[in-house]
Amino acid sequence: MAGRIEARLAEMGIELPEPVAPLADYVPFVRTGNLLFVSGQLPIGGDGLAAGQLTAADHAADGVPAPGSKLALAAEAAALCAVNLLAQAKAATGDLDRVTRVVKLTGFVSCDATFTQHPQVINGASSLMGRVFGEAGRHSRAAVGSSSLPRGAIVEVEGVFEIE
Amino acid sequence: MAGRIEARLAEMGIELPEPVAPLADYVPFVRTGNLLFVSGQLPIGGDGLAAGQLTAADHAADGVPAPGSKLALAAEAAALCAVNLLAQAKAATGDLDRVTRVVKLTGFVSCDATFTQHPQVINGASSLMGRVFGEAGRHSRAAVGSSSLPRGAIVEVEGVFEIE
Amino acid sequence: MAGRIEARLAEMGIELPEPVAPLADYVPFVRTGNLLFVSGQLPIGGDGLAAGQLTAADHAADGVPAPGSKLALAAEAAALCAVNLLAQAKAATGDLDRVTRVVKLTGFVSCDATFTQHPQVINGASSLMGRVFGEAGRHSRAAVGSSSLPRGAIVEVEGVFEIE
Repeated sequence: MAGRIEARLAEMGIELPEPVAPLADYVPFVRTGNLLFVSGQLPIGGDGLAAGQLTAADHAADGVPAPGSKLALAAEAAALCAVNLLAQAKAATGDLDRVTRVVKLTGFVSCDATFTQHPQVINGASSLMGRVFGEAGRHSRAAVGSSSLPRGAIVEVEGVFEIE
Repeated sequence: MAGRIEARLAEMGIELPEPVAPLADYVPFVRTGNLLFVSGQLPIGGDGLAAGQLTAADHAADGVPAPGSKLALAAEAAALCAVNLLAQAKAATGDLDRVTRVVKLTGFVSCDATFTQHPQVINGASSLMGRVFGEAGRHSRAAVGSSSLPRGAIVEVEGVFEIE
Repeated sequence: MAGRIEARLAEMGIELPEPVAPLADYVPFVRTGNLLFVSGQLPIGGDGLAAGQLTAADHAADGVPAPGSKLALAAEAAALCAVNLLAQAKAATGDLDRVTRVVKLTGFVSCDATFTQHPQVINGASSLMGRVFGEAGRHSRAAVGSSSLPRGAIVEVEGVFEIE
């Protein structure tokens, strides 16, 4: 019997993947007190890894990523990182209804010196959390540029959750 | 009636701005237990946004930013990020006297591969916290380089605070 | 009389250095509740600072750093950051046996846009934590690229620990 949040995911057409195994000598999450620290997640899904790097040439003139543009694909990749965070949180808690708050997301965008629309990319992850959890999904956040990311990923997002 | 910390800010000639609205689908702070996570703040003040990127050409030979130098302006921008963190902490707590400790600052400096004086930049934020809060302002910290930051900002600082 | 973890360090031939002093206006660690936030540590040891920057030319073809390669040196530098984190945790707690869990490591790798083997570098730190603490050393993690790091360091690692 799925909980409220998993019913909401199903309604949104989101199926949680098998949690992605760490690339190395660490674990995907650690609980301490009521906080759950989830390791940085890459945009790995059914189509493999979303790789790439953004530059000013990828900016949306009006700040809104055009469908199919590289900026839109990067925002979708950030949403995929968020889905992978949820898969880990589900593995950690057994039931996403036990997540009482998304506390913090940190989003790293692979980009060069000319890129300035990091928020538009990480919004892909933020907006997914809001749609899944409602009020409890409203989180604090930082979005910054990275010179490159593991495996050439275009984005990486880590998260801190409050759980029962 | 202002509290002790707000009196201290006034004494230092610092007026807290209206908290800067998030650029996207997230909130400026989340409280969990006694911890307050404040979103990454950009150096936005009365003069707009401090933009730019640092290189080795901006290094201070003796490690001390010369007044008016780009390095000094970047350190002032970091201090402005700290003021914006305080504006959010004030909005979160109602009274900065309820901040019992600045726990952690993470400072991201927009710079190229040749730049090495990140601490000198983020000191702008660290030193402000010390002057405002005294002992309670002594925080842990990381200072790192970013290939670029939202809106072309020269620096971004996020914070974790302990509150009553 | 050394505790269990310090005996383990001695067995591994690791001597904790004097904790490295902060480069600036902050402190090396802050405790809040049962969490210890340790400031970002640079790879500073008996041979000075491990400086440098990684590119695709430094990749290990099979993903395993070859002994003496720049990638292997970067992983050793990450392990040195971990040792420096432990030196700070020892200063904070008086006895590393009071560390009940390594909660989170964040590893920043100085690299250009072509580098993709960040996990192999930060594994140097992760694997050391596992060897020192066993189960309690299994941590969550993020590994990302930085355009540059303080003093030209090749890697910087910060940590969150759970303590008694």
